[in-house]
Amino acid sequence: MNVRLTAGQRPALGELGTAARFALSAATTETSVSSTADLHSWYAGCHERLGGAEIERIPFAEMRGWRFQQDTGNLVHDSGRFFSIEGLRVRTDRSWVSNWTQPIIVQPEIGVLGILVKEFDGVLHCLMQAKMEPGNVNLVQLSPTVQATRSNYTRVHQGSSVPYFEYFRHHPDARILVDVLQSEQGAWFLRKRNRNMVVEVFDEVTPGEDFRWLTLGQIRQLLKEPHLVNMDTRTVVSCMPTISSAHDLVAEVPGDDFAADVRRSTSAEAKSLHTIGEVLSWLTEVRTRRELLQQQVPLHCVAENGWLRTQTEISHQDGKFFRVIGVDVRAAGREVASWSQPLVEPTGPGLLAFLAKPIEGVLHVLVQARVEAGSMNVAEMAPTVHCHPGNYSGVPEAFRPLYLDTVLSADPARIRYDTMQSEEGGRFHRAVNRYVVIDVDDDFPTETPFSYCWMTLNQLAGLLAHGNYLNVELRSLIACIQAA
Amino acid sequence: MNVRLTAGQRPALGELGTAARFALSAATTETSVSSTADLHSWYAGCHERLGGAEIERIPFAEMRGWRFQQDTGNLVHDSGRFFSIEGLRVRTDRSWVSNWTQPIIVQPEIGVLGILVKEFDGVLHCLMQAKMEPGNVNLVQLSPTVQATRSNYTRVHQGSSVPYFEYFRHHPDARILVDVLQSEQGAWFLRKRNRNMVVEVFDEVTPGEDFRWLTLGQIRQLLKEPHLVNMDTRTVVSCMPTISSAHDLVAEVPGDDFAADVRRSTSAEAKSLHTIGEVLSWLTEVRTRRELLQQQVPLHCVAENGWLRTQTEISHQDGKFFRVIGVDVRAAGREVASWSQPLVEPTGPGLLAFLAKPIEGVLHVLVQARVEAGSMNVAEMAPTVHCHPGNYSGVPEAFRPLYLDTVLSADPARIRYDTMQSEEGGRFHRAVNRYVVIDVDDDFPTETPFSYCWMTLNQLAGLLAHGNYLNVELRSLIACIQAA
Repeated sequence: MNVRLTAGQRPALGELGTAARFALSAATTETSVSSTADLHSWYAGCHERLGGAEIERIPFAEMRGWRFQQDTGNLVHDSGRFFSIEGLRVRTDRSWVSNWTQPIIVQPEIGVLGILVKEFDGVLHCLMQAKMEPGNVNLVQLSPTVQATRSNYTRVHQGSSVPYFEYFRHHPDARILVDVLQSEQGAWFLRKRNRNMVVEVFDEVTPGEDFRWLTLGQIRQLLKEPHLVNMDTRTVVSCMPTISSAHDLVAEVPGDDFAADVRRSTSAEAKSLHTIGEVLSWLTEVRTRRELLQQQVPLHCVAENGWLRTQTEISHQDGKFFRVIGVDVRAAGREVASWSQPLVEPTGPGLLAFLAKPIEGVLHVLVQARVEAGSMNVAEMAPTVHCHPGNYSGVPEAFRPLYLDTVLSADPARIRYDTMQSEEGGRFHRAVNRYVVIDVDDDFPTETPFSYCWMTLNQLAGLLAHGNYLNVELRSLIACIQAA
Repeated sequence: MNVRLTAGQRPALGELGTAARFALSAATTETSVSSTADLHSWYAGCHERLGGAEIERIPFAEMRGWRFQQDTGNLVHDSGRFFSIEGLRVRTDRSWVSNWTQPIIVQPEIGVLGILVKEFDGVLHCLMQAKMEPGNVNLVQLSPTVQATRSNYTRVHQGSSVPYFEYFRHHPDARILVDVLQSEQGAWFLRKRNRNMVVEVFDEVTPGEDFRWLTLGQIRQLLKEPHLVNMDTRTVVSCMPTISSAHDLVAEVPGDDFAADVRRSTSAEAKSLHTIGEVLSWLTEVRTRRELLQQQVPLHCVAENGWLRTQTEISHQDGKFFRVIGVDVRAAGREVASWSQPLVEPTGPGLLAFLAKPIEGVLHVLVQARVEAGSMNVAEMAPTVHCHPGNYSGVPEAFRPLYLDTVLSADPARIRYDTMQSEEGGRFHRAVNRYVVIDVDDDFPTETPFSYCWMTLNQLAGLLAHGNYLNVELRSLIACIQAA
């Protein structure tokens, strides 16, 4: 075992554990290192530098380096690397459309999404990057310090081309604070995970011009803006524990607004409706009872299920779900790079919503255990409502997602967060979701159907130390609710 | 959420939590309900009743209900249920034989392995079953209360044919104590898991003649015998927490023998070399760095890798690894049943060994993160040595498993446990493993290679609340070390 945590050689954590240090960073929105006013001018400068990238939709045949394999029809890169678009045949026990075949992104290698943190004036700051991805709304969004592939990772004897990545690989002047494999979109990826890391550095680190130190509180402020904080940041940030376990910090969280309810629900003393053992038993029950058979098939098999391939896209005959398209990318900035790649483009925006309410005085959110085509472990926890409403046009009332109408008809006065955010722009083209948090009435039923469970934010945060419990949409929404 | 834990309506747990109640049961080997003398005569009676089963090796063509699919060569049941033998093509980054194709058991449905427990005279007792499985050494072994398939589980409106199974399905007079999905043999199964459950019953329960109440201490006594406690029991028992967290119970565990070292290492106060965060980070690192690409292929593809099918078996040309055979089974006892089925038969015994040593006064065991062909999550924790030594004949010295020679040449005076045990007799024919625990010298290096990590038994027990951390061989060995 070659662990980089060498606590004995490090500044002591003092009275505050890691979670309390993150909590302090979350409570801080102005520091000598990072003033909010400068932050906005930095971000505007990055947009000017990087936002001139040109993204052009092109026919598949014009994509440099990509081709459809003759025997399978799979869309692959000539190098055999990156990712491929293949077919997946799925059998489930769902009552509406239980069997289908679909295109799916296959990317078995595990990459790293890493945020470097450093203490300035006693407060942890996160080294964030303004990064262009071809599928991003606004092109440039706030990203983790590094996004690295397994190839970057295992290339032991070569220098890495990913700035700061050395701190994520056994660096003597760094220590790991968060390190967990987490899943990505199960509707579009086959069993994909990325390694979510947060590493504290004790070196002097000079941010490059696309990089900047932000407190967690500043990142949460930016989460109130649409399409600014990217998905990779949201998932890594969600894994930063901000549970205050020291009694003096949590005994009395001040305030009677929703933000204070969220902080109290996150605290270690938050009393929950169910024990964590009960929650895990419920998820185990769902994983056992629900059925998910996954069979990888050649991409040309998706035709059996109404998927059509033209010169420019693979799409479903009903106009629902998503399209696979090809783009040509010409990046801007100092290092001008250009490449072609496929992207998955949903046909409409998604809806990811929490219903939240106090139970015995502590805010709980309603979580569902959701089965998705590409799930690694049958079901993961997901937001109360997790769907693309457009896919349900023409679907009988009885098969519409539970609680969808509750969300769509919510009293605007009870909506605590309501912002459009993008999913990963390196794989998805303008995959936008409406993230919503609704504070429902006290008399909203505490009883739930089989696949749903009320949980505190503290319970969800505890499970984030392990992989494949919370899906990426739920992790994003947890980042968002903490910005409410 | 429909959880069966309704603590308010139950006898209070009092001062002792679930873990302390299991610890008390583990410390008890004689009760008014279960005397050890009677236990042996009961078990002898079961053997007499059930042990007359006839298991006959037959050609594949004579197996009732099973056939080779024409297009794929897969060995399947006519009903499409139970399990099938298919092909798996594997690509890894191992230095010795990194790519291969092999037969593998595909059984995507999750079954239940459940032990019913009940308190008598203040001590938890486990309802154990003497059960015949065709592949068992000695045919009859001590099994959990129930082994049920998903079909048993979801058959809501029909009575179950599995005795006592009603207590594992939302029974008003029962409460769940353990409930977790755990993996099974990754070398022979593709991503197989079973649900490991322990349920406490408050009803009167009358054991049938093949059933009997045993304390955890009695089960541990029986684990000193070879081939008596079956694999399903070992994995469920390993998931019973026996961590004593109440200070008065653990402050001073008496005794200076190895058994006392084991109990101290299991206690909540056991100081560990690495924090649990460091351990999880290490496993995440292995899962990211190691490569495992799995491709399900038709069974006839295994011929490309030297697997040959005759009328009676599928085996490897080198005589290594395992064979797939067919058997006809005629059970004995009250309900005479008969059926045919395939079994996987390893070509030689396996070796599953712990190296253990005190670090700063607390016993640690050396765990490896092991990649197996059918792993769901790249790598799981495994015993220090986990191999079939016969498969390494002719393999260059440099590629033999680490620590194998340390185990094989161990001073007999340092061997604390050394017993042959069987793996699941419903799928494997005489799959026997030597389970060994070796108490190495203080000067044995604490430094370890990349894939290895020293852990306390308390840390391993904590991870057993989650699935896919500890492989089934490690869980078995944890059950065994607690019997040492």
